[in-house]
Amino acid sequence: MPELRKDYITDTWVIFAPVRSQRPIAGTASRRTTDPESCPFCEGHEHLTPPETYALRDGPRDSPGWRVRCVPNRYPALEPIGPVDRSSEAMFGRVSGVGSHEVIVEAPDHGAHLGLMGDDQVGRVVRAYRERIRDLSGDPRTRYVLVFKNHGERAGASISHPHSQLIAMPIVPQRIVEEVEGARRHASANPGGCGFCEVLEAELADGRRIIARDDAFVALSPFAARFPFETWIAPRAHAAAFESLDDAGSTRFARILKDVLARLYVVLNDPDLNFYIHTAPVGAPAAAFHWHVEVTPRLAEIAGFERGTGMFINQVMPEDAAAILRGSVRAAGHP
Amino acid sequence: MPELRKDYITDTWVIFAPVRSQRPIAGTASRRTTDPESCPFCEGHEHLTPPETYALRDGPRDSPGWRVRCVPNRYPALEPIGPVDRSSEAMFGRVSGVGSHEVIVEAPDHGAHLGLMGDDQVGRVVRAYRERIRDLSGDPRTRYVLVFKNHGERAGASISHPHSQLIAMPIVPQRIVEEVEGARRHASANPGGCGFCEVLEAELADGRRIIARDDAFVALSPFAARFPFETWIAPRAHAAAFESLDDAGSTRFARILKDVLARLYVVLNDPDLNFYIHTAPVGAPAAAFHWHVEVTPRLAEIAGFERGTGMFINQVMPEDAAAILRGSVRAAGHP
Repeated sequence: MPELRKDYITDTWVIFAPVRSQRPIAGTASRRTTDPESCPFCEGHEHLTPPETYALRDGPRDSPGWRVRCVPNRYPALEPIGPVDRSSEAMFGRVSGVGSHEVIVEAPDHGAHLGLMGDDQVGRVVRAYRERIRDLSGDPRTRYVLVFKNHGERAGASISHPHSQLIAMPIVPQRIVEEVEGARRHASANPGGCGFCEVLEAELADGRRIIARDDAFVALSPFAARFPFETWIAPRAHAAAFESLDDAGSTRFARILKDVLARLYVVLNDPDLNFYIHTAPVGAPAAAFHWHVEVTPRLAEIAGFERGTGMFINQVMPEDAAAILRGSVRAAGHP
Repeated sequence: MPELRKDYITDTWVIFAPVRSQRPIAGTASRRTTDPESCPFCEGHEHLTPPETYALRDGPRDSPGWRVRCVPNRYPALEPIGPVDRSSEAMFGRVSGVGSHEVIVEAPDHGAHLGLMGDDQVGRVVRAYRERIRDLSGDPRTRYVLVFKNHGERAGASISHPHSQLIAMPIVPQRIVEEVEGARRHASANPGGCGFCEVLEAELADGRRIIARDDAFVALSPFAARFPFETWIAPRAHAAAFESLDDAGSTRFARILKDVLARLYVVLNDPDLNFYIHTAPVGAPAAAFHWHVEVTPRLAEIAGFERGTGMFINQVMPEDAAAILRGSVRAAGHP
């Protein structure tokens, strides 16, 4: 059974999932070499995964005919078994490793790419994210659900077939707590305000770090981007939870997500990257958070300085990254 | 001029150092391929570095005859020029990028390895760390000095000649603030106590996570280790600042540091790794902190989940890692 442990002194949590060491070792060659013949995510191979938890499909469950398909991860970091026991004997904080770890297969086609798919298909993926978060948030053991994507081996992907993942967990992760508390600090200085709303307003007024915008969403290079070409996408109107998106909102979000991924694909030649959705903790009040997506290309190694400080060294100014991604500057020599 | 920026909402700091993009691109082959003919850290090549800031040597500065040599980094993240300006216009917190970025060359020999050197040489490296921290802490612009080492390309090293680095900076990094505040929370629950002292006491009493110990130091696998085979080394007697080590203490610390690095070398076949020294912030009271070193091998990729949460997934229980590193269990199949 997996276990969560908290650092003695700080609020850093670690999931111990020793069973995962049985997973196949990822290939060391290019990420493009994963073999479709043995790919568990290809259409027609539904028997290679655990039974599906959700699908947009024709035909019966666990058969071909789907457009998007969600399944439990075969090597789960957390498992949906048993109650959540929390113990905090002196400095040894533990929580039982109860939760869910699922894969969202983004398309039946092994060679598809989220940044190059049709808008309709990206919209299906976004609705699958939403449905799985809604479902898992209904489990009283769930405190947080993170949807994330690893694209490319340097970004941690072991299978090249396009897929995202989610982990539902019995704690709220430190990074989310920091954002909630930061937003609350801001709100207490400015009653009724949302820190994120004010960030978007200031960035739209400034303009230098804006990559794309429409009536509903904005994509920007954050002022203190940790990574070269890091890009955030957020709804312009206040909304705490990603999973509160309606179908029309999902379609519009899918369009800007795809737009950002396509720009990165072109400018950086299909970089390895991660993205993840920061939604509100389960049950958080509507004022407490403002959901957003953070897209982080993998262009440089994280080294001892970053591990030791929690700080980052970034060689590309966000103003320059935004100009390049807007298309107003050639990317020669970057990064 | 470099610049530090703080995230809009959280306390995450980023150093923007665009000049670093002029640095040579690291080779993509094995880390062993850096050419000694053009190595700026080899004895006889002293003219390839900026003038030394410190050395343990015979002969004149910037000539051969040294055992350990410290020089400014040719591609510095921060530069020791000008005053520290701090501005916090709304959500756009900036600090001028004033500080120092140095390299500590650990030996004249291109192929040396800190885990395989003689104890005397490791002792010289430790004394060089101490002397540079002491010197740079005397600059009133310095709030923190981090000594760190990147070993191997996956760990961020671009030159294979054995070296460590340090960055002196005008802020206290978030990770250190978290440790100081965690220790303070503990101390306020337990007047006069040090959280780290109590951790060491509890771990020594338990024993399962202890790797090595002597009268002065303990090396352990932390209860919530973020990475497989992560190892911490701390003085058993309370001490806030690494740089308060006297010569005898430096010699003893060098012995256990080398012992830990040698165990990792043998068990994991010379893994890429980082380590860094967490010392107290400049001017912090003696009760506020307990210095320690964190050694983190690079055996798995950090992926979207870790970036999105600040949490980690670890496939090796620290009790197992400690047993293997103590030598009481064979490492077959790990990790």
